[in-house]
Amino acid sequence: MKEVVIGIDIGGSYTKYGIVDFKGNCLRENFISTSKYADFDVYFDTLQTEIEETLSQINDPIKIMGIGIGAPNGNYYRGTIENAPNLNWKGTIALVDKMKEYYPGLPIKLTNDANAAALGEMIYGGAKGMKDFIVITLGTGLGSGIVVDGNIVYGNDGFAGELGHINVKHRGRECGCGKRGCLETYVSASGIRRTVFKLLAEKVTDTELRNYSFKDLTSKMITEAAKKGDPIALEAFEITGRILGVKLADAVACTSPETIFLFGGLAQAGEILLEPTRIYMEENLFPIYRGKVKLERSHLQETNVAVLGASALIWKELQS
Amino acid sequence: MKEVVIGIDIGGSYTKYGIVDFKGNCLRENFISTSKYADFDVYFDTLQTEIEETLSQINDPIKIMGIGIGAPNGNYYRGTIENAPNLNWKGTIALVDKMKEYYPGLPIKLTNDANAAALGEMIYGGAKGMKDFIVITLGTGLGSGIVVDGNIVYGNDGFAGELGHINVKHRGRECGCGKRGCLETYVSASGIRRTVFKLLAEKVTDTELRNYSFKDLTSKMITEAAKKGDPIALEAFEITGRILGVKLADAVACTSPETIFLFGGLAQAGEILLEPTRIYMEENLFPIYRGKVKLERSHLQETNVAVLGASALIWKELQS
Repeated sequence: MKEVVIGIDIGGSYTKYGIVDFKGNCLRENFISTSKYADFDVYFDTLQTEIEETLSQINDPIKIMGIGIGAPNGNYYRGTIENAPNLNWKGTIALVDKMKEYYPGLPIKLTNDANAAALGEMIYGGAKGMKDFIVITLGTGLGSGIVVDGNIVYGNDGFAGELGHINVKHRGRECGCGKRGCLETYVSASGIRRTVFKLLAEKVTDTELRNYSFKDLTSKMITEAAKKGDPIALEAFEITGRILGVKLADAVACTSPETIFLFGGLAQAGEILLEPTRIYMEENLFPIYRGKVKLERSHLQETNVAVLGASALIWKELQS
Repeated sequence: MKEVVIGIDIGGSYTKYGIVDFKGNCLRENFISTSKYADFDVYFDTLQTEIEETLSQINDPIKIMGIGIGAPNGNYYRGTIENAPNLNWKGTIALVDKMKEYYPGLPIKLTNDANAAALGEMIYGGAKGMKDFIVITLGTGLGSGIVVDGNIVYGNDGFAGELGHINVKHRGRECGCGKRGCLETYVSASGIRRTVFKLLAEKVTDTELRNYSFKDLTSKMITEAAKKGDPIALEAFEITGRILGVKLADAVACTSPETIFLFGGLAQAGEILLEPTRIYMEENLFPIYRGKVKLERSHLQETNVAVLGASALIWKELQS
């Protein structure tokens, strides 16, 4: 009987789920829309029915060991999604309690997507056997999962590890959270786009990036341009790496990780982003830490990492 | 038979030690010079002899449960003092191994002074029963002890929790660590003195603080002046609280503590420092944390807290 976990990743647009074994093999995976369901109960019934349908397609005998869920503003302690800005359902959603009605007796755990990514790295990826590391997810925003002594840092309220909202600049760029100058307004797929537009305003340098509207420009286009030597794209990566490097140096002074893993769309730029980040991080580290902290891309495939990470929540739980 | 711990606080000038029970009562305490011993072995022999002498003065029967030591750059994992800038002995000192030769079989633990202060707060002070909190020590420099899920964060190399060296300003004030713009160059007893001198240079405001040389001015004088309404002193505290508040907001985004305790000379200014710090921290917090994090002065007496903290290292060890 193969032991498996149901991993569920709730995103603003889609909810992906997969049936995952301990090695990170995804036996089956599928998705439903998240955004089209205004009502949480209707969404939940659909998701539950679809998962059952997917499970029924597996021919080999399986034993479900638990359900791990990653969701924006997912609270590990309370099993709730709380005031997630990108989801239709406002206030506090008691997701784990609801899930337990359908799967009584099973371990069911919820955390946010960046913590799930860190758990995925720990169970299946480059952080196997590591006690202290940080995963930074560079998507539309910047998320972080901080691991100390082998465990995710949840903190007093279950919401620890929000490095995307540490303060870069007083009265800096407006952030979706309501503050200004947050790290993710500079360092993320949308942050680097803002940096490119600032450079386009300031400079007269010729660049293909002048051909795109703000809405059309993607971080992938900026990465492609940088690879071809476009000066504005390269400068944008330099600035992004500088800001990220300084802030990672500060994060090191908090928890002294062995490795920092970068994950997500913008991290696909590879050394174009990693090299300046590494240089500025090292330069701004308290000397006692210098030369000790590795900066790497995530060892996980981008495709289904969120589902894998969500499933890792249960494997991690069963380990301890 | 009364169970006691020997707590030792190694400072640049003096080494203080005490015989401490579980409630934090100091049965005996004493000190020797640190700075006058150029040779570590001579220092150590003196310390050991003096401790024995002090133990012999206790009439009631006692049982020594262990020895806890706080020292600058004390490494918990390795039991070493490594390249401490304020001590005579350079390189790596294997203090715990040395101590074990004299007290075989006893638990002997070493950490840095700020971690010891955090443990003191946990065992004897305001953090009893708290799982997640931070202690900031505001002495000549700024130290920090970060507690996550009931344990000090030591990190990968045993040197985690150096918030004094996170980056405030690019090319900012020169720091003793060799970097520039570190938090402790702004927020500490010496940091606020630098801030006062900057204000004296910039402004024509009349203030008694113009009567002192840089060497003579102390943070206590600045505190006294602020209490009497001196505008430069008050502005210096406002600036100090603003910088500290923003950086504490960032620290909260890392580990989400329940309470942040301020300790040490500068913290004795009380609300003159706490009020601006609280306002700027709250303003710069990611909204999810707002209204949840308390900022307080340490609940411990200043007098022998370092010795108490060092002893707490052993009580904490025996608890787990």
